[in-house]
Amino acid sequence: MSRRLRVVFVGCETGENAGFLARTMKNFGFDELWFVKPVVDVKLLGAKTAMHAADVLDKAMIIDDLKGALEDADVVVGTTSTRPTSEKNFTRNYVTPREFAEAWSRTSGLTALLFGREGSGLSNKELDACDLVVSIPTSKLYPAMNISHSAAVILYELAIHTGAVKPSRQAASHHEKEIFVNIVVELLERTHEVEHRKTLVRRALLNLLGRSYVSKREMATLTGALRRIFKYCEARSVNN
Amino acid sequence: MSRRLRVVFVGCETGENAGFLARTMKNFGFDELWFVKPVVDVKLLGAKTAMHAADVLDKAMIIDDLKGALEDADVVVGTTSTRPTSEKNFTRNYVTPREFAEAWSRTSGLTALLFGREGSGLSNKELDACDLVVSIPTSKLYPAMNISHSAAVILYELAIHTGAVKPSRQAASHHEKEIFVNIVVELLERTHEVEHRKTLVRRALLNLLGRSYVSKREMATLTGALRRIFKYCEARSVNN
Repeated sequence: MSRRLRVVFVGCETGENAGFLARTMKNFGFDELWFVKPVVDVKLLGAKTAMHAADVLDKAMIIDDLKGALEDADVVVGTTSTRPTSEKNFTRNYVTPREFAEAWSRTSGLTALLFGREGSGLSNKELDACDLVVSIPTSKLYPAMNISHSAAVILYELAIHTGAVKPSRQAASHHEKEIFVNIVVELLERTHEVEHRKTLVRRALLNLLGRSYVSKREMATLTGALRRIFKYCEARSVNN
Repeated sequence: MSRRLRVVFVGCETGENAGFLARTMKNFGFDELWFVKPVVDVKLLGAKTAMHAADVLDKAMIIDDLKGALEDADVVVGTTSTRPTSEKNFTRNYVTPREFAEAWSRTSGLTALLFGREGSGLSNKELDACDLVVSIPTSKLYPAMNISHSAAVILYELAIHTGAVKPSRQAASHHEKEIFVNIVVELLERTHEVEHRKTLVRRALLNLLGRSYVSKREMATLTGALRRIFKYCEARSVNN
């Protein structure tokens, strides 16, 4: 059984958000969108902000009743920015997007992810019917995110946890970094550098390369250049 | 020296994005926003989408020259959705938002985070002048995110890595979960359940509680209920 995500937007009030939601879904590789009782003509008014995700918006389902959007779902997940001040409020006892993504990446079946109205979000009754409630940790000064922005954050977590999207940059291996550092140390030996400073330089270089997330390609370029410098020094030391 | 973030939006073309950017910044606890050569009146046209982040938008700096926004920055970070097909393209050799957040959380000083025009993003020349380029892993079918949505994802990563925002839900400790499970096992012992099945039930319950990210409060409620059940059984077994 495969893993499937349905994004359900309850009571959409502005076409722009409908379009932005479709776009951010396509950005992260999701395409099943349902609208429950939208207040505006989401397909007409959302087209502009959907940009190249017009296909996601076009094929979106529009229905009158939330139940209809959830009846075949295995897991129903709500979203809220209203986090309880007391943990006694079990309805809004939430997990973070990362916790949700971790759990989701280990399961299969159809998950419906619910977003609520722009003005008031999902109702307590709607949240109560969910298996799980997700809330993005935000500033107490302004916790309420725009719906399509909160979708971006949650879908981003889902996509990277399941490998639906992945960075293509290949990090250099520890071995590749070692080769580079060893040539530098070998050059320092020619200058009769003291042992203590060689150790420092080695550590500083490895720290630097580590923190910079140097790629295979960058490392190869730099190592190649260093090898040429090394050979040049070798040739000179033979002549002198 | 403290850590500070300046968000710099180059060539903003629509007021809505200016407002959404201010809002998403405030959502994640950031408030220093600069506009470089905006094409529209960002403060006037952004007010609607900024919502309760009007203060961030109001005090935003507007200048004509990118240099002016960067001259006091220690680190300049670019953003792009155009990821190179070849890693030979060093200008667009990027890190992910999470890698950026990890690096950022370990440093101090002023970091300028650049976002580019809605239509064309940052130019190669602008990216080339950055110390670091960040790109969000997105679907190859539609890699380009709206600028305020990509800001939401990147600022979310920065905020959670530095603890600027944090979830308030307190997870139950392993010990608290053990207490609950031990009572269940003790109840099973009264039913003369076989050892093998008791082990299975213990493991299943621990798995369930683990995956559900059960909170201290939920665990206390459930353990309290179970204790009452246990006492009821005890009383009955004395009477029988």
